[in-house]
Amino acid sequence: MAWLRAMRSLPLSNIKITGEFWSVRQDRLVAVTLPHIYDQLAQTPRLDNFRRAAGTEEGPHAGLPFDDSDIYKWLEACAYGLTIRNNPRLSARTDEVIALIENAQMADGYLNTFFQLKHPTMRWKNLNMLHEMYCAGHLFEAAAAWKECMNDERLLEVAVKLAQHISSVFGPNKRRGYCGHEEIEIGLIRLSEVTGDPQYRKFAKWQVEERGKKPSPFEAELQDPEIQALSPWGGTLLRSDEEYNGEYAQDHAPIREHTQIVGHAVRAMYLYTAATELADGEDDAKLETAIETIWGNLTQRRMYITGGIGPSARNEGFTADFDLPNLSAYAETCASCGLILWGHRLLQLSGTSDYADLMERALYNGAISGISLSGDTFFYDNPLESRGGHARKPWFTCACCPPNIARVIGNLGQYVAGISESTFYVHIPCGMEADVDIAGQRVRVIVESNYPWSGKCEIRVESSTPALMSIAVRIPEWSDEMESDLPDAENEADYKDGYAIFRKTWTSEDRLTIDLGLSAKWIEADPRVLDNVGRVALECGPLIYAAESVDNKFPPQLFTADLETEFEFSPVAALDGSFAITVDGWKVPASKSGALYGEADTSAPQPSRLTLIPYATWANRGPSHIQVWLRRP
Amino acid sequence: MAWLRAMRSLPLSNIKITGEFWSVRQDRLVAVTLPHIYDQLAQTPRLDNFRRAAGTEEGPHAGLPFDDSDIYKWLEACAYGLTIRNNPRLSARTDEVIALIENAQMADGYLNTFFQLKHPTMRWKNLNMLHEMYCAGHLFEAAAAWKECMNDERLLEVAVKLAQHISSVFGPNKRRGYCGHEEIEIGLIRLSEVTGDPQYRKFAKWQVEERGKKPSPFEAELQDPEIQALSPWGGTLLRSDEEYNGEYAQDHAPIREHTQIVGHAVRAMYLYTAATELADGEDDAKLETAIETIWGNLTQRRMYITGGIGPSARNEGFTADFDLPNLSAYAETCASCGLILWGHRLLQLSGTSDYADLMERALYNGAISGISLSGDTFFYDNPLESRGGHARKPWFTCACCPPNIARVIGNLGQYVAGISESTFYVHIPCGMEADVDIAGQRVRVIVESNYPWSGKCEIRVESSTPALMSIAVRIPEWSDEMESDLPDAENEADYKDGYAIFRKTWTSEDRLTIDLGLSAKWIEADPRVLDNVGRVALECGPLIYAAESVDNKFPPQLFTADLETEFEFSPVAALDGSFAITVDGWKVPASKSGALYGEADTSAPQPSRLTLIPYATWANRGPSHIQVWLRRP
Repeated sequence: MAWLRAMRSLPLSNIKITGEFWSVRQDRLVAVTLPHIYDQLAQTPRLDNFRRAAGTEEGPHAGLPFDDSDIYKWLEACAYGLTIRNNPRLSARTDEVIALIENAQMADGYLNTFFQLKHPTMRWKNLNMLHEMYCAGHLFEAAAAWKECMNDERLLEVAVKLAQHISSVFGPNKRRGYCGHEEIEIGLIRLSEVTGDPQYRKFAKWQVEERGKKPSPFEAELQDPEIQALSPWGGTLLRSDEEYNGEYAQDHAPIREHTQIVGHAVRAMYLYTAATELADGEDDAKLETAIETIWGNLTQRRMYITGGIGPSARNEGFTADFDLPNLSAYAETCASCGLILWGHRLLQLSGTSDYADLMERALYNGAISGISLSGDTFFYDNPLESRGGHARKPWFTCACCPPNIARVIGNLGQYVAGISESTFYVHIPCGMEADVDIAGQRVRVIVESNYPWSGKCEIRVESSTPALMSIAVRIPEWSDEMESDLPDAENEADYKDGYAIFRKTWTSEDRLTIDLGLSAKWIEADPRVLDNVGRVALECGPLIYAAESVDNKFPPQLFTADLETEFEFSPVAALDGSFAITVDGWKVPASKSGALYGEADTSAPQPSRLTLIPYATWANRGPSHIQVWLRRP
Repeated sequence: MAWLRAMRSLPLSNIKITGEFWSVRQDRLVAVTLPHIYDQLAQTPRLDNFRRAAGTEEGPHAGLPFDDSDIYKWLEACAYGLTIRNNPRLSARTDEVIALIENAQMADGYLNTFFQLKHPTMRWKNLNMLHEMYCAGHLFEAAAAWKECMNDERLLEVAVKLAQHISSVFGPNKRRGYCGHEEIEIGLIRLSEVTGDPQYRKFAKWQVEERGKKPSPFEAELQDPEIQALSPWGGTLLRSDEEYNGEYAQDHAPIREHTQIVGHAVRAMYLYTAATELADGEDDAKLETAIETIWGNLTQRRMYITGGIGPSARNEGFTADFDLPNLSAYAETCASCGLILWGHRLLQLSGTSDYADLMERALYNGAISGISLSGDTFFYDNPLESRGGHARKPWFTCACCPPNIARVIGNLGQYVAGISESTFYVHIPCGMEADVDIAGQRVRVIVESNYPWSGKCEIRVESSTPALMSIAVRIPEWSDEMESDLPDAENEADYKDGYAIFRKTWTSEDRLTIDLGLSAKWIEADPRVLDNVGRVALECGPLIYAAESVDNKFPPQLFTADLETEFEFSPVAALDGSFAITVDGWKVPASKSGALYGEADTSAPQPSRLTLIPYATWANRGPSHIQVWLRRP
C-alpha cells in the first residue's frame, strides 16, 4: 500500500498540553532551559562568531565548525517555546539573535561563520565532515518554525537567500554534492512547506537520491590533504583499511539498496526522516520497502528498550544486530530525538500505531533522560547501566543535544495528536486541549488524564453545534486490555491500524472514557541480545524503570528480581512526584571479607527489596549506580 | 622482615621440563614459534632497519619507533630455546641477526635504528613515548641471556657499549632522565648479574628512584611541539586536562609513595619487577611496604581470575578497583608475562608461596592464552568473554606480545623450581629433571607428573651418594587437601611459607609422592566486581575454564550452571589432549520468534549441559563465542 499522508499534526498554537507530566516540563523549558541555552551560546562564544562574521566585533572564529547549528536549533525551540508560554525576556533574546544572523549573512546569501571567518576560500570543499549544509538545514528548520508558529519571516528571508545560494552551486547539471551529516534535506522540505515553493523539496529529493551512488563525492575530498586538514577529526570513519566506506554517513549505497541501519545514528535518523517525507504520495514501492526494512532492522534488532539507539561511542552509531551493551551504551540524546522525528513521519504517512509506539518509547525514556528535571543539565549519552560518575552537564563542547531535546519538548503538541479530514487522532493520551477545524467546523477536543501515572483518560468535544467526527485513540503495544466507554454511541468502536475509532455526532455532553489497563510488568529481551540474557526490565505503561542506588542501600547490580513480586507504587517528591515501584527479590552481600576469588558460596540468597524509578529521571539526585536490566532467578 | 633472597633459579641448561603439557609447548616454541617470528622480523622489515642503520642497505626506517625491541626479545627467547632444544637452522638465523646488530651500532655505542635513520639529531629527546631506553633494556636482557645460556658474549659487547653510552648521558650529576616505558631497569640489573659489574645496577636504582619526583623530565618534553611531533601518539595519556599526570608511566609519585597499581600495565610490571630486585638485601622497609601494597592492590582488586591484568584498551592498563569487565577485557599477553616476572622476583626474595600462586595463575591462563597451540598465532588482548570474531593473528604492527610469550615459555625452567643452599623448591610440579649443586654435591631431582591434568606427582633424587637436602613442594592456594607420602622419612614434613618441606638424606630409592587433591570447583568473585555478580567460574587446579561455542550447540552466554553438578572429564584431541569438563545446568532458547522486547517468560528453564575447556586453549578451533563467568541460579 503506497504511502499517502494519513494525517497531519496540528498547528502548535492550536494545541495545549495540559497533563502535568509534560506541562511541568514545558514550563521549565521556557523558564529555565531556553534562557540557560542562550547564556551558553553567549558565553561559549557562539554568538560572538556571528558578530565577528558581521564585522561588528573583532576576532577569529572560536569553537567547532558547526557551532552555528546550536543557535539555529535554539531559535527553533524558542519558536515553539514562545508559542506555548510567554517569556518577554526570552523573546527579546531571540530578536537579538535573529538580528545577528541577518547581519552575518553575506551578500551572495552564504552564511556559515566558521568558513566566513576561518577559511573563506574553502567553502563547500569539505562536505564530508564540516557540516556546512547541516548548519543550513537547521537554519531552514528554525526559519520554518518562526514562520509557522510566530508568523515571523525574518529568518525565512535569510534561509531562502541561503537556500538559493546553495542551489546555485549544487544540483542537477551543476555540482554533485550533499552533506556528510544529513539535515539539510529536512530543512529544505520544511522550506517548501512554509513557502509553498516546491523547488526546495525537489532539491532535497535530488540530494537523497544522489547519496550513496558511486563514486561518492566524499572520496575525492578524503584524498585531498588540504581539505582533510580543515577537519579536526579527519574522515577516518568514512574509511575502512584505506578503502572508502561510506556507512558512517549512510553513503554506502543508494537509499533503495539500504537494508540495515548503519553508521552515525543521528545522521541516519535525519536521512530517513527526510526520505520518508519525500515518499509521501510518490507510490515508490522500492523506497517504501527500503525504509520499512531499515526501520524494522532498527527497532527489532538495534534499539534499546529505552528507545535509545546507536550503542557505540566510536562512531556515535550502530554496530551489529542485537549488540546492545548496557554499561557502555552511547544512545545519544539526539539519536532518540531523531527516532521521534522519523517515527512521527512514518506515523503520519501510514496512520499505523506501531510507529507511535516507538515514538512514545523514545519520548518517555531515552530522549527525555537527556535533560534533568531542573531543565538546565543534559546527558549526551544515555547508558542503561551506570556504576556511578555519570552526571548531566550544563553544556558540551559539541552541544547538539541540549537544543535538540529542547525543540522536541517545545514541539510536543505536534507529536501527541493528529488530524485527518474527519478524525482526531490521540497518539499519546497525555492531557491536552486541541482546537481543530474538522468536518467543516471548529471544535475543541479535550483529553483529561494523569498519563503516564494512570492509563485512564476522559475525552470530550466542545463545539457550538453537534459535530460529526471520529476520535481515534491509539491502543498502545504495552496495553493488554484497553477498555472504553462512550454512552449513547451510535456504533461500536472501530479498530483499525492500532487505533480504536469512535465515530459519532459529538455534543459537549459526550464523555469518552478510556482505560488502557496500565500496569507494571517484567519484560525480557530477545535472547540474541546476549547482554540481557537472564535479565528482566520493569515497564509500566510507556515508562521503562531503572533501579538507582540513591533509593536503595546497595548498587542495584547486586539484586535479583522476584518475578512473582507484588508491585508497590509510591510517589517521589524529589522527582516531581514520579511514581517509584518497589519489588521483592534477593541480593548478594555488597562485599565479603577475603580473597578476590574464592569458592562459590551456595547458601540461600538474602531476601531484599529494590526500588525503581522511571529511567528518564535517573541521576537527578546526584550521580548514582543504576541498572535497567535486573538479574532474574 | 627485610627481603633477602630466599632462593635462586636454576641455570636453564640444568633443568629440563619433561611434563607433557609444557614439553609439547617447548617443542613447538623452537620448531615453530621462533622461526615464525624470525620470518616476521625479516618481512616487516624490522631486520632491514638494522641493515639500513649499518649502511649495508639503502632505505629509510620503516615501522614503529620501538620495533628494534622485537628483535632483541626474539634473540632472548632464542637463547632459551636453543638451550632447551637443538635447531641448527634457527641457530644460524640468530648468528645472522646478532651480526646485524653488531654492525648497526654506532662508534659511540649508540644503537636505535629509528633515531639513527629517521631523527639522528633527536636522540634522547622524547623519552616519554619513544622507548629509546626500553629498546636498550631488551638488548641488555638478550645479551644477558646469550651470555648465561650460550656463553656467547657477542651481544654483551654491544650491550655494554650501549650501556656505557647511556650512562655517559644520564645519571647523577649528569642529565636526569628515565624511560616512559620501563624495561631498561631490568636490563641493567641483568647486565650487572652477568658481568659482575655493579655500576649498571646502580644506574638502574638511580632511575627507579628518580622516577616520579617533581618536576618530571617528561613535562618539559610534552610542552615542546618538535619533540612531541616525533611520536605518533603524542603524550596525551600523560596529561589529564592539560595538567601533567604521570600515572600512565608510573611517574605520578616517587615509588615509595605508590599505593595502587596504575597506568599502563606492562610498564608497571617492569618497573616493579626491577624495584623488587633492587630491594634485595637493602633492608628498605618503606620500599618493601610500597611494593607489597601495590602487589596487594593488583592481585586483590585489579586482576582477572585468569591472571590477566589491565582491563582497559584506552591506556593498555589499569582503571579502578574491582573494574574487571569481561567482554572488553584488554588483559594484554605482555602484561600477564610481566606479572609472571614480578611474581617470580617476589617469590625468590620472600620464599613465600603466595607469589607462586599468582605466577602460576598467569602462566597457565592469561599468558599462554596469548599463543595458539600451533605456536604461530597470537592474541594481543585476552578477553574473558567473546561473542565471536576474536582470533589469534600471526603478527601485529606493534608486535610486543609474540616474542614476550616466547621468552616466557623458553625460560620456563627458571620459573617452576628454585634452589637455596640446601633446599630444592618445586614451585610448579610439572614434570622436570633438574641437576643441582646442593649441600656440596651434584644431584638430579626428578619430578614426574601429568600436571595440570593430575595433581599427583612423584619426586625422587638421583645422586651418586646419599644427599642430605630438603625438597620443598608448594601447597597451591587452590589445593584444599594436599597429601604426601615419603616412606622411611626421618621426620614429619615441615610446613613453612606455603611449602611442605621434606628434609632427609635422600637415596635413589626414595620416592616422595604428592597428591594435591586437584578437583574442579566453582569460584565466585568478590561482589564488588559487579561484572561477576551472580556468576561463577570453573577452576580445576591451576586452570581456569571457559565455555566455547564450538563445543556446545549454543553460545555459552545462554547457559546457567547448576552448582550441584557432577563434573565429567574428557580429553579433547584437537586441543593436545586438554581435558574438557562438562557440567549440568539450564539454558534459554537461542532465539524466540516475536518482538525484540516482550513480556518475560516465567516457564521453567530447559535443562542443558555445557562443555568447558581450559581458558588458555580457546579459539584454537576457529573464532568462537566464549565465556569464563557463567550465570549461576
